[in-house]
Amino acid sequence: MDAVKNLDAVDATTSFQVKSFFDSAPLLKDAESISRKLTQFIHQNASLTGSEGPRRVVCVTSGGTTVPLEQRCVRYIDNFSSGHRGATSTEYFLKSGYSVIFLYRRGTWQPYCRSLPDDPLLECFKLTSDSSIQVLESHAEAVKSAISGHHDAVSGGYLLKLPFTTIFEYLQILRLIATSMKILGPNAMFYLAAAVSDFYVPWESMAVHKIQSASGPLDMRLAQVPKMLLVLRKEWAPTAFCVSFKLETDKEILLEKADTALKKYKMHAVVANELSTRKEVVILVTESGKVSVYRENDLSVVESPLIKLLVEKHSTYIMDPNA
Amino acid sequence: MDAVKNLDAVDATTSFQVKSFFDSAPLLKDAESISRKLTQFIHQNASLTGSEGPRRVVCVTSGGTTVPLEQRCVRYIDNFSSGHRGATSTEYFLKSGYSVIFLYRRGTWQPYCRSLPDDPLLECFKLTSDSSIQVLESHAEAVKSAISGHHDAVSGGYLLKLPFTTIFEYLQILRLIATSMKILGPNAMFYLAAAVSDFYVPWESMAVHKIQSASGPLDMRLAQVPKMLLVLRKEWAPTAFCVSFKLETDKEILLEKADTALKKYKMHAVVANELSTRKEVVILVTESGKVSVYRENDLSVVESPLIKLLVEKHSTYIMDPNA
Repeated sequence: MDAVKNLDAVDATTSFQVKSFFDSAPLLKDAESISRKLTQFIHQNASLTGSEGPRRVVCVTSGGTTVPLEQRCVRYIDNFSSGHRGATSTEYFLKSGYSVIFLYRRGTWQPYCRSLPDDPLLECFKLTSDSSIQVLESHAEAVKSAISGHHDAVSGGYLLKLPFTTIFEYLQILRLIATSMKILGPNAMFYLAAAVSDFYVPWESMAVHKIQSASGPLDMRLAQVPKMLLVLRKEWAPTAFCVSFKLETDKEILLEKADTALKKYKMHAVVANELSTRKEVVILVTESGKVSVYRENDLSVVESPLIKLLVEKHSTYIMDPNA
Repeated sequence: MDAVKNLDAVDATTSFQVKSFFDSAPLLKDAESISRKLTQFIHQNASLTGSEGPRRVVCVTSGGTTVPLEQRCVRYIDNFSSGHRGATSTEYFLKSGYSVIFLYRRGTWQPYCRSLPDDPLLECFKLTSDSSIQVLESHAEAVKSAISGHHDAVSGGYLLKLPFTTIFEYLQILRLIATSMKILGPNAMFYLAAAVSDFYVPWESMAVHKIQSASGPLDMRLAQVPKMLLVLRKEWAPTAFCVSFKLETDKEILLEKADTALKKYKMHAVVANELSTRKEVVILVTESGKVSVYRENDLSVVESPLIKLLVEKHSTYIMDPNA
C-alpha cells in the first residue's frame, strides 16, 4: 500500500542536520525501559476493537523543552508552557475512546488536575484532631475526580505517561514513540502541543562547566533545531494523522505561519493559538480551510470542541488516508 | 549605634547599574499586598521573645530565577535549582526557633515535602469503593508530616511564603523584605540559597514579540545583573547577618570564588557547594576559616548540621555585631 501521497523524501540538508543533532545528543537514559513500556502499551491497545473499529492511539506532547547552555547543566533556555493544553486534551481524547501516550515536561499540568490549586497536597487537606488526613470540603470534588480519572486511565491501560526535560530527551523519546506506533497505521495520531525550542546549543560545542560571569556581557550563538516535524511526518510516522501547533504573540503573523507549517511539514491540521486568547479560542487550519473553535462558555474549555472536531477529521482520514 | 563596621557606600558604577535595573524592570504586581503581609508578619514576630531573647527571623530564598528573552514571554533563560536546599533549610530554621520568610520560585520544593513523590496527589492517594479518598499506607507518614508541619508553621504565624518567577520579581520582593526586616536589627538573617541569574536582557532592549526562528542562528547579548548582594548588605539590610551561596561544577574554582564573595560582598558566611556532591557535603566559609559540613548518614540531610552551625554563628553575631 502506498499509504502516503506526495510525500517526497526529506531533503539532504535536513537529513544531515537531523543526523548531527541525534549523533551529538547525550544518550537517553532508560531508553530500554521506555521502549519496553511503549511496545507493551501499543500491542495491548492494538488488539482492542471498539464499535468504530480498532482502538485509536494518540501521542499528546505537552509542556516546554529546555535547551541546556552547559553540559553539567546549571543554566538553560526554557520555553514557557504550563502544559494545560496537553493535559486537558488528553482527558478529552480518553473520553472520545482514544488511548493516549502523554509525553510531558516534568512538573507541568497532569490530566484531570486542572481544577486543583497549585499545591494540592498542602492546600486541599488537613489533619483531624485524631491525626488522620481529611480532604477539605471545598476541594473534595476536584480531588476525587483527579484521583479517580487518573487511576482509571492508567490502571485501565489507556494512558501511558512519559516525562522529559531537555530537547534532547524530548526528540529521542518522540522518535521511539513514532517508530513503535507505526504498526497502528492510520489509527495513530500525533497531537504535538509541546512548546519545542527553535534554537539549541549543540552538545559538543557546549561549555562543560558553568559559564563564568566575571568578564562582562555574555554573547551566545544558538543553532536552529532541525525541522523535526518534517522528519516525523515523512520518515518516523508516515501513515499517522499529524496535528501540530503554532503559538505566536503577534496575531498578524500567526495565520501566515500556521499556513506555512501546514504546507511545509505536510501536517493534516495545525492549531493556531494567540498567547493572550488561547484559552478562549483557537483556529484549526487544514487544507480545506480555517475554522475558529470557541469554548462554549466560561466554565468550559476550548479543548472540548477542538478534540471533537479533530476526532471527526481523523475518522475521515482513517477511511481514506490517501484522499 | 554604628551597627556596621567597614561598610563603605556602594560604588557609583554599581549604584548606577542597580538604579537602571530597577527603573527598567516591569512593575511588581501585588507589591502592596506583599508589603502588607510582610509588615504584619514582621511586627508580629518582632513582639515575640523566647528563652534566648527576641525571636529571630530569617529570609530564606530558594529555587532559580528566570530571565525573560521576550516581553510577552515565551522563552526565557532559567537557572537549575530544585529548591530542595531552601525548603529543607526552612524546616531546620523553624525547628531552631526562627520564623521564616520563604521567598521561593513557583513550582519548586516546599518545606516538609521532601519525603513525598513527584506528584503526591496522584501517587499517594486512592479512592475506596465507597468513593472516599484514602492515603496509601506506604505514603501515610510522609503525607501526614507534610500537612501537619506546613499547617503548624503557616497558621502559627512562623512561616510566610512568597513566590517569584523572574529575576525582576525576585529582586523587587527581596528589596521589600530587606527593608521591612530592618527593624529587627541583628536578629534578622538572610540565607540566600536561590540560584540567581548572572545575566539578563534589560527590559527596554527586549523583543516585544516572540523571536522568529526563520532566519538562521540566534545571536544574543546578555548584560550582567548588578551585584545585588553588595547592595543588600550595605544598603537594604546593613545590620542583618548575611549568608550567601556559591554553586560551581568545577571544584577548583569553587573555594576561590567563595572567598571572593565573602570579601567582595562582605558576607558573614558563604556556603560553597559543588553540584555533584552538594547533598552530602558543603563548605562553610567565614572570616575565621573554612569548615566542611557533612550529613551524618544516608538518611539524614546536610542542612541539619549546617543550620545548627549558622545559628551558633548568628548568636555570636547578635551578641556583638561589630566584632
